[in-house]
Amino acid sequence: MPSIFSKIISGELPCYKIAETDKFLAFLDITPLAEGHTLVIPKQEVDYFFDLADDDYAAILLFAKKIAAALKKTIPCRKVGITVIGLEVPHAHIHLVPLNQMQDINFSRPKTPISAERLAEIAELVKGNL
Amino acid sequence: MPSIFSKIISGELPCYKIAETDKFLAFLDITPLAEGHTLVIPKQEVDYFFDLADDDYAAILLFAKKIAAALKKTIPCRKVGITVIGLEVPHAHIHLVPLNQMQDINFSRPKTPISAERLAEIAELVKGNL
Repeated sequence: MPSIFSKIISGELPCYKIAETDKFLAFLDITPLAEGHTLVIPKQEVDYFFDLADDDYAAILLFAKKIAAALKKTIPCRKVGITVIGLEVPHAHIHLVPLNQMQDINFSRPKTPISAERLAEIAELVKGNL
Repeated sequence: MPSIFSKIISGELPCYKIAETDKFLAFLDITPLAEGHTLVIPKQEVDYFFDLADDDYAAILLFAKKIAAALKKTIPCRKVGITVIGLEVPHAHIHLVPLNQMQDINFSRPKTPISAERLAEIAELVKGNL
């Protein structure tokens, strides 16, 4: 069964897209830990992030580095953090989270409610800074 | 003032070393979120991880990928997670954490107490699986 991410890649489900290449896709997390929380995924269906081949692994992380720079320009934050966990959705994904305090990257705390309008606005602002 | 990591790199402070190259060092976190929790750092004094040049950034993440594979062989876990936060020690570092549940990568929860003997034992086991 395709994961929710495969449905986003195919266009079956919509997303607040930040950037896309032939191999990778970046879009906003709709239940963000902080404003600008972005997911970066390979289009290849891989469950465990470290199962990516070395060249794809390095390439997706370099793609994420560019997205992180645009996030840093867009969202007031001290740093942009990276997390790859992979215990919930069985399709490898990198979280990029604008950070001001340690709690901003605590996946166990309640998520910040955010409107569709604000998500769309953030996506446009980040794209403008890419 | 040199950070605690610079003192580990110079040998002024000891560590439970896993692997070392001319550019990078991997060693066990002595206040681990889970057994096998490893820190991977550049020897270059860089505060913000994304300030690493693209080639060093890709290289340290590929170095971390090898360490993660050895951790996965050594510590019973579902996956090895990656986190870069950087709000506390001003020297870029990658956390590699063997994960069985989401709480294993919650930096806000109390750390697992661990003995020096067990840390030394884990370091030897992981090195043996590199």
